[in-house]
Amino acid sequence: MDWRENVRMVTPYVAGEQPKISDIIKLNTNESPYPPSPKVGAGMASLDAGLLRLYPDPNCTVLVDALADYYGLTPEQVFVGVGSDDVLALAYLTFFNSKKPLLFPDVSYSFYDVWAELYRIPYQTVPLDDDFGINQEDYLRDNGGIIFPNPNAPTGVFENLDLVEYIVKNNSDSIVIIDEAYIDFGGVSALKLIDKYSNLLVVQTFSKSRAMAGIRIGYAMGNPELIKYLSDAKFSFNSYTMNLTSLTLGGLAVLDDAYFKEITAKIINTREWFGKELTRLGFSYPKSCANFIFATHPEIKAAELFLKLKESGIYVRYFNQPRIDNYLRITIGTDEEMRKVVEFLNKYNV
Amino acid sequence: MDWRENVRMVTPYVAGEQPKISDIIKLNTNESPYPPSPKVGAGMASLDAGLLRLYPDPNCTVLVDALADYYGLTPEQVFVGVGSDDVLALAYLTFFNSKKPLLFPDVSYSFYDVWAELYRIPYQTVPLDDDFGINQEDYLRDNGGIIFPNPNAPTGVFENLDLVEYIVKNNSDSIVIIDEAYIDFGGVSALKLIDKYSNLLVVQTFSKSRAMAGIRIGYAMGNPELIKYLSDAKFSFNSYTMNLTSLTLGGLAVLDDAYFKEITAKIINTREWFGKELTRLGFSYPKSCANFIFATHPEIKAAELFLKLKESGIYVRYFNQPRIDNYLRITIGTDEEMRKVVEFLNKYNV
Repeated sequence: MDWRENVRMVTPYVAGEQPKISDIIKLNTNESPYPPSPKVGAGMASLDAGLLRLYPDPNCTVLVDALADYYGLTPEQVFVGVGSDDVLALAYLTFFNSKKPLLFPDVSYSFYDVWAELYRIPYQTVPLDDDFGINQEDYLRDNGGIIFPNPNAPTGVFENLDLVEYIVKNNSDSIVIIDEAYIDFGGVSALKLIDKYSNLLVVQTFSKSRAMAGIRIGYAMGNPELIKYLSDAKFSFNSYTMNLTSLTLGGLAVLDDAYFKEITAKIINTREWFGKELTRLGFSYPKSCANFIFATHPEIKAAELFLKLKESGIYVRYFNQPRIDNYLRITIGTDEEMRKVVEFLNKYNV
Repeated sequence: MDWRENVRMVTPYVAGEQPKISDIIKLNTNESPYPPSPKVGAGMASLDAGLLRLYPDPNCTVLVDALADYYGLTPEQVFVGVGSDDVLALAYLTFFNSKKPLLFPDVSYSFYDVWAELYRIPYQTVPLDDDFGINQEDYLRDNGGIIFPNPNAPTGVFENLDLVEYIVKNNSDSIVIIDEAYIDFGGVSALKLIDKYSNLLVVQTFSKSRAMAGIRIGYAMGNPELIKYLSDAKFSFNSYTMNLTSLTLGGLAVLDDAYFKEITAKIINTREWFGKELTRLGFSYPKSCANFIFATHPEIKAAELFLKLKESGIYVRYFNQPRIDNYLRITIGTDEEMRKVVEFLNKYNV
């Protein structure tokens, strides 16, 4: 007997590189190329550090209220956590306690199976079609829960709300989580369905469209009963997950809707331009509703291009996985950054 | 069949009140009465909010390195999380996967059984002696892990290192966690034992002696193998738990050792003075090595005094639990605050 026998050993998720060299074009983890709202900077500069001696508000009122106001919900319909990963991991622990398998797409966010392994939750992946689309009939089988991103990552494919509603409606015995990390770049949120379906949880994040990956805020929206279960589990784990700065600055960010819309529109514009350039260069990609494009080329090996890009200081994401090992996921940066990528590809393509 | 059947329903931990009214004397959650180091304030004012667009360093290098340097460890011996609750909850998930019961004192931190319930870990509480001391022989029984705070909360009782070592040494098949949230107020850390015992994990926090409850930082120290298991579990949960401000400001706080020693000494001095006043007023309490005193009075009902104190704006902590339902846990505030408490008690006691 040895204490190691009682250790939960896991294969951890490997996130995209966070290189410390500053002179690179970082298009590998879907961060915003723009800073957060100027109100966030002003808020940080005026925060009284003396307040840090006290525990933060465990109910996260300032942030929850700001989000509830913004989305036209009550505070009882909103739960906040340390990035959407924290929210999703807690939702797994809270909602997926069935012996039946959790279902999610085969090409999807790579954390889904990691959480299932961590909590010993049975799961089955459901193949996307050849265009990386979801076949809604595939989700009519017996299951203990369903999760998928919409738009999907790393493909960028958005499924319309009819499909989402079909899956939610036909799985009323399971919790269905729609992971909307990228929803603000052209998708339509399933939020409008939460009053209709008690089994629907919608999760979003500040890390992409709100340009605050560094502050760690994610949030779930659903009916008050679901939110209460999630909140009870959180209060059984850590009463104070959100620090003073994330509560304060997150709240301020939500108030600046004009800025949010401005940078989101800019990223969409840049994506559309960059997409046309990729097409001109012979790449193809599924239509993206996210802040990245998932591109492949009939004659260029993605793995090789990935390394060449990196050598020249351009970091994108490559997944050495079945079905997608000849694709690159390229985050949309500034116009300037994307022009440099195109310049590089122009030369590479010769 | 209903989705509720698969929900993990729990009875959450109830933290001490965090009242929003400002004109109170808050001695109920063991926060520091002093602000964090002035270096923290300066660091916050000069932080570039633009950096928040990027994910924070997943390896928490600046903070881990600062702690490793401070304690004379290697970075591989240090793990950081969102307060010690986050670290401890993750340690439960990682290390306590036995069918044998986890052991901890009957009078102890109220989160210990909450985490066990959350993760469905079997546990047994071990009664403290009549003076709230640990009987080391009680921990020789078959177990799947051991955890206790030293100094203990809410009693303030510190157990000497010989006792700690005896328990760690005689349980080499289990992980033993020493929860040292209050160690800097007069205890001696078990840190010096981590090289000798591979099954020992020492957990500390920034929330008490480092005056930064609002930033949410806790840390575990142990041999690199233990730390790696913890880190793997963390990376299976959330790659980025620590936001940019906690990493930066936490790192700065550790560097200012002079300030840390100054405020810690002040709190100890205030505690000793306040303790004598309590004795004069007829209270008794176990010797405290923490930033609180756990006091009882032969003629005054604690529950009643708790309410009277609250009515006059003085918040302390009352636990309506067996063995301790006639005690109050009073956090040590500033001299000024504690004088006001004594004034109140002088009148109350007449």
